[in-house]
Amino acid sequence: MSVDKQHLLQFLLRQGDNTLVLGHRVSEWCGHSPILEEDIALANTALDLIGQTQMWLGYAAEVQGEGKSADDLAFLRDAWDFRNVLLTELPNGDFGRTLLRQFLFDAFQSVLMGRLMQSSDETVAAIAAKASKEVAYHVERSADTVVGLGDGTEESHRRMQEALEYLWPYVGEMFASDETDAAMAAAGIAPDPASLREEYDALISKVLTDATLDIPAATYAHKGGRTGYMHTEHLGHLLTSMQWLQRAYPGCEW
Amino acid sequence: MSVDKQHLLQFLLRQGDNTLVLGHRVSEWCGHSPILEEDIALANTALDLIGQTQMWLGYAAEVQGEGKSADDLAFLRDAWDFRNVLLTELPNGDFGRTLLRQFLFDAFQSVLMGRLMQSSDETVAAIAAKASKEVAYHVERSADTVVGLGDGTEESHRRMQEALEYLWPYVGEMFASDETDAAMAAAGIAPDPASLREEYDALISKVLTDATLDIPAATYAHKGGRTGYMHTEHLGHLLTSMQWLQRAYPGCEW
Repeated sequence: MSVDKQHLLQFLLRQGDNTLVLGHRVSEWCGHSPILEEDIALANTALDLIGQTQMWLGYAAEVQGEGKSADDLAFLRDAWDFRNVLLTELPNGDFGRTLLRQFLFDAFQSVLMGRLMQSSDETVAAIAAKASKEVAYHVERSADTVVGLGDGTEESHRRMQEALEYLWPYVGEMFASDETDAAMAAAGIAPDPASLREEYDALISKVLTDATLDIPAATYAHKGGRTGYMHTEHLGHLLTSMQWLQRAYPGCEW
Repeated sequence: MSVDKQHLLQFLLRQGDNTLVLGHRVSEWCGHSPILEEDIALANTALDLIGQTQMWLGYAAEVQGEGKSADDLAFLRDAWDFRNVLLTELPNGDFGRTLLRQFLFDAFQSVLMGRLMQSSDETVAAIAAKASKEVAYHVERSADTVVGLGDGTEESHRRMQEALEYLWPYVGEMFASDETDAAMAAAGIAPDPASLREEYDALISKVLTDATLDIPAATYAHKGGRTGYMHTEHLGHLLTSMQWLQRAYPGCEW
């Protein structure tokens, strides 16, 4: 595989693993949400994310050219092969933390998808165009919930502030560029994520201010997920559940 | 397989699955215990339980006669094949609940192993003789901890009472006899568990009284684990972790 293809594959795995891992996390809420409407909304969000995964990993498998499917990439890779940012694999915590994590990710996706729709790679542009409609809805919804809970009762405000302090050190990784990002930017396939930070900060600052939450001053960022250098201990546990069926019954079909 | 052999196999799976599932649960504490000495003690308890599993499931595989090993039975069966009592698969909760669950199980094992040492089946008698030394130590240790925490601070007492109320509905299953138990008793291989209840109650009443804990009056018992009729949702999740290596890398060896 050419170096260009390797970088494209890496880029696509990052997109697909983000949505796959977050989609699985969100699906864990199914049947456990505080009210029925939220249960259905979260399940739908999870489905959207898994649907986007199908597109990203489907294209990744095509670029890889080893005859694999999106399912193979989702269910038969091990933790060290995953390229999702650490933010997406963190445990759900309470409902507020789940929605704040969703908002921090949705905001990133909304900025990114707008740029990817202009990608020089037609397949990337088409996936982004399709995903962007869902992302626009997701970010509107998660932002509303973050404001509602942050600017809510004393307890909901306290919990949301705690969630923000827990999640904040994982935000920076989304903007940590490397040679793959440089290659994507040079080819006009995707923007350098570092170049999205300003727009992202403006977006989340507005929402978090409306939510009466204080953005932590610390700029330290946990990294390693999107490069595959390291994941948190949580990813392996998530994969044992997520991959159980294909691992226990290899090749099974409905 | 003759009906007698089927009952013997069922009996052996119940013994081995109890120690396997509880052993795995206890091993989850490794590296997370409140103090180093307890961490080592819990890891050793887990090792003892897994060691007993090796004997019980090893004999089960021999009786089954399909050329399987104890490892095959441990790592390649699915949740519906497991025959452990539900008590052993419950989540650890806090340190106190883990030790109380251990005590409630150890007390049962200590009564049972004393009888199994007289088994008409020489292999069962030999396994029980070997296990009984470990069980005697386990029950002494878990009883001491239950008394220490139950008759400890206001918070530790409250937590232990809550743990007892959570665990109590799972105690009765250990004494719920069926046709397999009747067959084992008729063959002189194992006592009818119902016949052990009086001795068990005397043992735990003494310890729980010393621990200043109130035994709940309710006699309702959750059942289904030892018959395989149903397990809690927790067993499937436990198995995805426990069986991950053999599922992801079938047949791998160290």
